[in-house]
Amino acid sequence: MTGMLVVAGLGPGDEALITPEVAAALADATDVVGYIPYVARVPAREGLTLHATDNRVELARATHALELAAAGRRVVVVSSGDPGVFAMASAVFEAVEHSPRLADIDIRVLPGITAMLAAAARAGAPLGHDFCAINLSDNLKPWETIERRLRLAAQADFAMAFYNPRSASRPHQLARALEILRAECGPDRLIIFARAVTTPEERISVVTLAEARAEMADMRTVVLVGSAATRRVGQHVYTPRRAG
Amino acid sequence: MTGMLVVAGLGPGDEALITPEVAAALADATDVVGYIPYVARVPAREGLTLHATDNRVELARATHALELAAAGRRVVVVSSGDPGVFAMASAVFEAVEHSPRLADIDIRVLPGITAMLAAAARAGAPLGHDFCAINLSDNLKPWETIERRLRLAAQADFAMAFYNPRSASRPHQLARALEILRAECGPDRLIIFARAVTTPEERISVVTLAEARAEMADMRTVVLVGSAATRRVGQHVYTPRRAG
Repeated sequence: MTGMLVVAGLGPGDEALITPEVAAALADATDVVGYIPYVARVPAREGLTLHATDNRVELARATHALELAAAGRRVVVVSSGDPGVFAMASAVFEAVEHSPRLADIDIRVLPGITAMLAAAARAGAPLGHDFCAINLSDNLKPWETIERRLRLAAQADFAMAFYNPRSASRPHQLARALEILRAECGPDRLIIFARAVTTPEERISVVTLAEARAEMADMRTVVLVGSAATRRVGQHVYTPRRAG
Repeated sequence: MTGMLVVAGLGPGDEALITPEVAAALADATDVVGYIPYVARVPAREGLTLHATDNRVELARATHALELAAAGRRVVVVSSGDPGVFAMASAVFEAVEHSPRLADIDIRVLPGITAMLAAAARAGAPLGHDFCAINLSDNLKPWETIERRLRLAAQADFAMAFYNPRSASRPHQLARALEILRAECGPDRLIIFARAVTTPEERISVVTLAEARAEMADMRTVVLVGSAATRRVGQHVYTPRRAG
């Protein structure tokens, strides 16, 4: 069983942030597979079948895409941002691991602009020195693991980016994360709530940890926390290249 | 003193990874400022002045770019990868901080595909779960800070990406970093040496920490280290979305 599957990142929202490589893969596709709002970003055209599925079915979606590829279709699985950062690329490889009959499919991952980099660019350069990226959702890992990583990241003095900081089913966890950060980093540390970056609904707020409230984030927000050296200069926030 | 300055990311090397947003900024520029090999990626044209400078003069380069912008030129400072990840954006904000007379210049940062994301895409999805990015150069921070961050990152079980892993002036430090990682993560942990990703000189090697040697990296290499869960599936390496 052969075939070819592309896993592509659509970037954070603005069409001008889709790489020409991804645009070419979409132009060549017979099938596009993904979560409903991401598939909605791909214009319909003759010869292209759009397969939009709901959230939390990543593994089934990945298996379906691999099966279409095995049947000879030119399939692109779309993610927002970068497919390798808390997105569909891992789910595709998990699906291959679970289905040895799909192991011969040629899989290509095409990078994209992930939300934290677009958010950082809008704010200035808050990730300008060593940093980490943490998925705050405990759908697929214990909350204790997240708390432990937050503490160690603070002790390492990383700047931090949080994906999936808050959802309707997990309203209290960002509040707990902010508590931990205040204890580890103090009240004056800068934190950026970047919502719907590069879309018409974009909203960027820069506050201190003392001022931060969990309600400042929703499902469309990426949260950036500065290191001890992160500071404001004019309208921007940046982390210097030099570190203690 | 007003003016406008764009800081743009050219991605890892392949022209097909330059975003349309960055391409439009370059098409509109009167002046492009940057490190010699990055400026060399911008085609010459009438009306465009290219200002290529040597490495390790980031602050002077940034100040020069701001002064050109203040004089009414349309200036783009180019970085490889993403300008906000171990690149020119922080240097530009540092220059503003040091020169209050340049504070009114409107600065826009345009994100790009940073090397670790291009390298991860080529390898599969090794950064598919929580991860960190560390600059292994001790030009601007004490080596002890780097060792401490490596140990804490290993204890947090982050996947890791290392920028500037090795240079002629720092030949021994990656060897020391590998020693620390072997002690913290054990010999079987996967490590990826990704050289000149997306260029004709691209070379990707996946080995274990036991097999890793500092000589596998040079100035054009980004190094990715898996988490405890990172594994091979066929030709690829990926980190599952689920974590302990």
